[in-house]
Amino acid sequence: MKRGLLIVVSGASGTGKGTVCKKILDDLPGIAYSVSATTRAPRPGEIDGKEYYFLSREDFKAWIAEEKFLEFAEVYGNFYGTPLNKIEERLNRGEDILLEIDVQGALNVKKKCPEGVYIFLLPPSLEELKRRIEGRGTETPESLSRRLANAVAEIKIGLEYDYVVVNDTVDNAVAQIKSILTAERLKVARNFDKFNFKGDFLNET
Amino acid sequence: MKRGLLIVVSGASGTGKGTVCKKILDDLPGIAYSVSATTRAPRPGEIDGKEYYFLSREDFKAWIAEEKFLEFAEVYGNFYGTPLNKIEERLNRGEDILLEIDVQGALNVKKKCPEGVYIFLLPPSLEELKRRIEGRGTETPESLSRRLANAVAEIKIGLEYDYVVVNDTVDNAVAQIKSILTAERLKVARNFDKFNFKGDFLNET
Repeated sequence: MKRGLLIVVSGASGTGKGTVCKKILDDLPGIAYSVSATTRAPRPGEIDGKEYYFLSREDFKAWIAEEKFLEFAEVYGNFYGTPLNKIEERLNRGEDILLEIDVQGALNVKKKCPEGVYIFLLPPSLEELKRRIEGRGTETPESLSRRLANAVAEIKIGLEYDYVVVNDTVDNAVAQIKSILTAERLKVARNFDKFNFKGDFLNET
Repeated sequence: MKRGLLIVVSGASGTGKGTVCKKILDDLPGIAYSVSATTRAPRPGEIDGKEYYFLSREDFKAWIAEEKFLEFAEVYGNFYGTPLNKIEERLNRGEDILLEIDVQGALNVKKKCPEGVYIFLLPPSLEELKRRIEGRGTETPESLSRRLANAVAEIKIGLEYDYVVVNDTVDNAVAQIKSILTAERLKVARNFDKFNFKGDFLNET
């Protein structure tokens, strides 16, 4: 079984990573979203391991102690976290996992999973980023200029990533990300099996 | 001016690299073929720097001494070679250069140009490779089995490349190579200019 790809998509706030990730999942059914763990109670219909991994507070704290989380936070009295152990299990089963994460969080993931594919989204321009943040209609002039300054600081962190994609339109960005994933799957380092000479190069696994 | 991509395509004999490279050049007008140097006389209509760089024997030998060739050979009294200096000039002008070269030759190029994109073509199966070599109708049983043994030895060298593409159909192989080139152009290492904050990320050069 060939190990799956860990695909990490990040970008400064306002670059539209949520929309881009949603379209990747819609267009590429072979890619699954990373599932978070939480201590909040499951709502009717929610399945453990699908919407969330549902943990008791005791178990969640044990996972923290065992460094099983890439990152975690407490929100309104409940814990939420990204469980590395579960991502590893799924990658080892051959699943491709998409992880949408903030700029700094992605670099922490990279330290633990350097073989992942780290994609940084840029807005087409600072002007357009400003328009997008303004468009939300929730910003005062002060908070807008603070958010823009933060975005500029975050964008510099993109230099630590593998690939940079300008999100001018969602379709363009997703098409470029598809090419990145195709190329990554063709890397020799992910295809040693093809050099084993069982004779059928196309169908080796 | 952004430096062009050096695209090196290779593969065991019989894997169809000539056909694949021809289609890349036909489909992607932005990519140009590497031009060889030769000491043979230009034929009517041939232009220096287009079909070949036409050199005197003296100049050719001087280029050999100055290590300007990635590789060279003497064929029927004329010298032919792949001039690294000319490839470098064109890459620096922003041109993307395609180099089709034998398996071992590509590894020599990789030592001198590690930033190139090294793509190894595989046949879909050894059985299909055998059919393709037989199909030429020029092989005795002995030469066929020798060629196949050579191909197996050459294929192992593919482990030193960056990407592996199975040439099951020319269209599939070329589509995969196009994705590789798109992804390579999106690498952060080739896009430092995008992080310079002149403000327009889409059109920085």
